[in-house]
Amino acid sequence: MKINSNFNNVETSYLFSTIAKKIDAFLQENPDKKVIRLGIGDVTRPLCPAVISALHSAVDDMSTKNGFHGYGPEQGYPFIKNEVQKYYQNRNVDLEIDEIFISDGAKSDAGNILDLFDKDNVVLIPDPVYPVYRDTNIMDGRKIVYMNANESNSFLPMPDSNIKADLIYLCSPNNPTGATYNKEQLKAWVDYALANDALILFDAAYEAFIVDDCPHSIYEIENAKKCAVEICSLSKTAGFTGTRCGYTIVPFDIQFDGHSLNKMWLRRQTTKFNGVSYVVQKGAAAVFSPEGQKQIKENLDYYKQNAKIISDAMDQMNIWYTGGKNSPYIWFKCPKNMYSWDFFDLLLTKACVVGTPGAGFGKNGDNFFRLTAFGNKEDTIEAVNRIKALISSL
Amino acid sequence: MKINSNFNNVETSYLFSTIAKKIDAFLQENPDKKVIRLGIGDVTRPLCPAVISALHSAVDDMSTKNGFHGYGPEQGYPFIKNEVQKYYQNRNVDLEIDEIFISDGAKSDAGNILDLFDKDNVVLIPDPVYPVYRDTNIMDGRKIVYMNANESNSFLPMPDSNIKADLIYLCSPNNPTGATYNKEQLKAWVDYALANDALILFDAAYEAFIVDDCPHSIYEIENAKKCAVEICSLSKTAGFTGTRCGYTIVPFDIQFDGHSLNKMWLRRQTTKFNGVSYVVQKGAAAVFSPEGQKQIKENLDYYKQNAKIISDAMDQMNIWYTGGKNSPYIWFKCPKNMYSWDFFDLLLTKACVVGTPGAGFGKNGDNFFRLTAFGNKEDTIEAVNRIKALISSL
Repeated sequence: MKINSNFNNVETSYLFSTIAKKIDAFLQENPDKKVIRLGIGDVTRPLCPAVISALHSAVDDMSTKNGFHGYGPEQGYPFIKNEVQKYYQNRNVDLEIDEIFISDGAKSDAGNILDLFDKDNVVLIPDPVYPVYRDTNIMDGRKIVYMNANESNSFLPMPDSNIKADLIYLCSPNNPTGATYNKEQLKAWVDYALANDALILFDAAYEAFIVDDCPHSIYEIENAKKCAVEICSLSKTAGFTGTRCGYTIVPFDIQFDGHSLNKMWLRRQTTKFNGVSYVVQKGAAAVFSPEGQKQIKENLDYYKQNAKIISDAMDQMNIWYTGGKNSPYIWFKCPKNMYSWDFFDLLLTKACVVGTPGAGFGKNGDNFFRLTAFGNKEDTIEAVNRIKALISSL
Repeated sequence: MKINSNFNNVETSYLFSTIAKKIDAFLQENPDKKVIRLGIGDVTRPLCPAVISALHSAVDDMSTKNGFHGYGPEQGYPFIKNEVQKYYQNRNVDLEIDEIFISDGAKSDAGNILDLFDKDNVVLIPDPVYPVYRDTNIMDGRKIVYMNANESNSFLPMPDSNIKADLIYLCSPNNPTGATYNKEQLKAWVDYALANDALILFDAAYEAFIVDDCPHSIYEIENAKKCAVEICSLSKTAGFTGTRCGYTIVPFDIQFDGHSLNKMWLRRQTTKFNGVSYVVQKGAAAVFSPEGQKQIKENLDYYKQNAKIISDAMDQMNIWYTGGKNSPYIWFKCPKNMYSWDFFDLLLTKACVVGTPGAGFGKNGDNFFRLTAFGNKEDTIEAVNRIKALISSL
């Protein structure tokens, strides 16, 4: 047996375990301190009542002979695909029902869709980056070209006509930087992809945080349906990180070498996936109901308010940052251009606040730091006050 | 962009859609006929009360700030891994907690685990076969060697020392044949795998139907933990086909080229999967509770009774078959050695009973036919009477 030796090239990520160990060590020496955690990108507010009610009702279905659901369609039930279709229609994006695939989350589909592509493609990935894009391609042995996201381009890298890429990862609003492409910028990417026979994998997981006129979907750009797959999730939109449901759009118009990418993905999913739990799909469909939309907006507004509390503080301190608007993430320059792990240690030991060092997301994050808006309001205010006091003392 | 051209070699499976079309056509011409369907391998009985209650309780958790669960461990929560560990202990198989991975079903893991292996391995697959084993390897471009399962080996092919295989698929009790390996036969496979530095992928999805002393788990064989991954599912055990939960065992002792397969699978799953829904894992854990085990046994007994009704009829007609015992499937020789699609047409049009032609599972199924025990008892009795009448009239 020969193993896939590309796994040798994937580095074990110690980011969040290193953070956890540092917090543990600090708390062992300082058991009376209250540490506020604004590090990990996980939601904290409960599922909204419309979703809870739909989940209960679906569980009841499963308890009766007539309501019981066995194997469902691998690509998702029509009752939820119809809701996703309407959600896109509301922003003037027309999707065919069979262009929509219900998934157990963005991470699975972002990884699994690589099954469709030859190993001999060039992958273009921003740095800093959500590590899944990088690691899944390393596991397949594809060549990766990094594009620099930094202060000079406001962490929104644009196409370079000198680089020939086949697969392009864009995440907007971005994880980890919160930076969000506008329509003109996304159009440049669509033009580049079409000119280079490339595919854009567009990660829209944070679209629900957009407040200005930046596109929520890449399909708001003309011709994007010829060159972009969009991966989205209810994880951040509706607190589904532990409930697991998302959707992936693979338009009929995407063709490579005469092959329909939609048909290939359908073949992949019907062979290697058996669909999302009926109960979960019912809960997810309720997110799109009028009550569901109203209720998730309350949660999103709560997180957005936290984001504003953090970004207002950055403004007051004249600290350069991205995100905060359109995003639950605030990505800021470490004071005195400190290395982000050094700032992490300082922030933990002097202010008892935990964030994520930018170095964990790529070399362009070395001197940047990420805070998240997913905590509760009181803690966020307290953390911001501590950060302000710390930074003014430096 | 170059697509993965191996997808060109995967045939589109028309088996169940062809069957559906034939039924539709028949019913259009014969709208007053009552067709009994014993074709598809999907369960029909509702989830048991212990599971329903656990699902409701988990949904309630998700509605409160303190009970809410966000991202869980990708490999599953300890509360369910502990239950799986105890389930194996009850048949004297000791597993470490971190050898157990909770999945969204056997199909996903059976496909996804191929990420760990080089394309340059030889895969040994029985014919007839569950098409997922074959198609997932064709998508990766691996060389497949088929081993004949037929009447002469009672559809239980044994190792051939002249064949050098790296990856071996065994499914026992088998889908589609219901044939089940005994301990001695599985020992021969473990010995072969160890002698050839090969890995066995053991699909135990139907283990709960075993009534005699055939092994439920390959780990009941000495040294199997050095050469076998076991994939199991609650789909057939507890009616989870639409609820989606299973488990995969990757023992620590499996090493290839000095690499721990367990560590590789953990890396794969943490990168490309975000775990099973908390709610579903809670429901699945309840399957292993004393009430859960008692309640699923009632459903399993119901299906087993149907299997006996069918296999008794085969005995009465002196028809050669496998399965029925240890399995919800009865795999029998078509009368007068008919081609299985011809027998399908005859059975549908003359007896209004639907089964699955063996040809759909491989060339060794050409003259065999599969019936399933997942219908209700009254329909099963009626179907058997119609089959008997048809066959005696030939």
